[in-house]
Amino acid sequence: MKENGRTDPADLRAVLAAGLVAHLGVLVDGHPMVVPTVYGYDDERIFLHGSVASRSLAGAGQEVCVTVTVLDGLILARSVFEHGVNYRSAMIYGVPQPITDPDDLRYGLRLLTEHAAPGQWDYARRPSRKELAATRLLALPLTEASVKISDGDPADGDGPDAALGLWAGRLPAVATWGAPVADPLLPAGIDPPPHIAGREGRPVAPRIA
Amino acid sequence: MKENGRTDPADLRAVLAAGLVAHLGVLVDGHPMVVPTVYGYDDERIFLHGSVASRSLAGAGQEVCVTVTVLDGLILARSVFEHGVNYRSAMIYGVPQPITDPDDLRYGLRLLTEHAAPGQWDYARRPSRKELAATRLLALPLTEASVKISDGDPADGDGPDAALGLWAGRLPAVATWGAPVADPLLPAGIDPPPHIAGREGRPVAPRIA
Repeated sequence: MKENGRTDPADLRAVLAAGLVAHLGVLVDGHPMVVPTVYGYDDERIFLHGSVASRSLAGAGQEVCVTVTVLDGLILARSVFEHGVNYRSAMIYGVPQPITDPDDLRYGLRLLTEHAAPGQWDYARRPSRKELAATRLLALPLTEASVKISDGDPADGDGPDAALGLWAGRLPAVATWGAPVADPLLPAGIDPPPHIAGREGRPVAPRIA
Repeated sequence: MKENGRTDPADLRAVLAAGLVAHLGVLVDGHPMVVPTVYGYDDERIFLHGSVASRSLAGAGQEVCVTVTVLDGLILARSVFEHGVNYRSAMIYGVPQPITDPDDLRYGLRLLTEHAAPGQWDYARRPSRKELAATRLLALPLTEASVKISDGDPADGDGPDAALGLWAGRLPAVATWGAPVADPLLPAGIDPPPHIAGREGRPVAPRIA
């Protein structure tokens, strides 16, 4: 597998832009736990949502690892041994801060909402003070991070296995948004707005050059 | 978010069948680390691939958490507060065993290969004894696991926010296999076999009833 570690902060942001779910690794009562959660980010921090994580982390000053992985496809080689996966992955390490300041909560929640559903912060009803107070958000600095991108072809095309005459190559996996499905309780005559309807058929994880 | 914990082993296997990448959470020198890795499974064990994990786990008798998450889409509500994610997720806890027995290695590697790329174990060249010896596999019993499936509509369709007249519903995300891309070193005239070509357009994470 051709796997390359990256050190450019732009690569970190590109992986965060392409992902939608992060996996938060944390110790709970001494046991490792890996929890999926949505996230948002800016140039300095990643914001994580999740009551489970917050409960176990609240004020604990405990180290975590947050990993965002985008699957790009399979590497199908001539030999089983050279099979692999093409992916983009970012790991972020550090001690997360629970966010309590209402302005920072609103800021983080906006980033989180707009990352998953661009346009919804302006379209939907924004959180009330009471809802904000019930929102559990964690922020983690982006300073300690490691990015890996594997984007390769099979490695056995110029070795003895090439003589087997087998097909080899990549099988891409692409996640796309489907057609919006209206809430069964939605009255007739309300159409999805363009920022939602316009996502249909578009990739969940855009490739960034 | 309508989120339901499941206890039926069939639900665990359905999530493992639908996923392709697992996130392995482990302590490395006291620091939590979450590593993406491919996997295979049978009725009793999940098999994980990965040199990073194996290096840190080899013979350590250390507890891990393996999480497999399939994103099914977004819940777009009338209020930001009720937004959420539809997903299927399985967490498996335990102490993994490094696999050293050649027969068990071959068995685990076959499961792993066939889970990601059904048909390749018979099509591609199988691992030699030397390649098997260089393969790092871990097995974890499926006995301690927790499954969560969120498959809901917005929760604010019968509350005061319904009067806002906003669209609300689900936005599905579907990962599909793309067209196979031949290795640049592949001689002309070798077509992808049906078990590879036939995946084009099919879902990566099939819904199981």
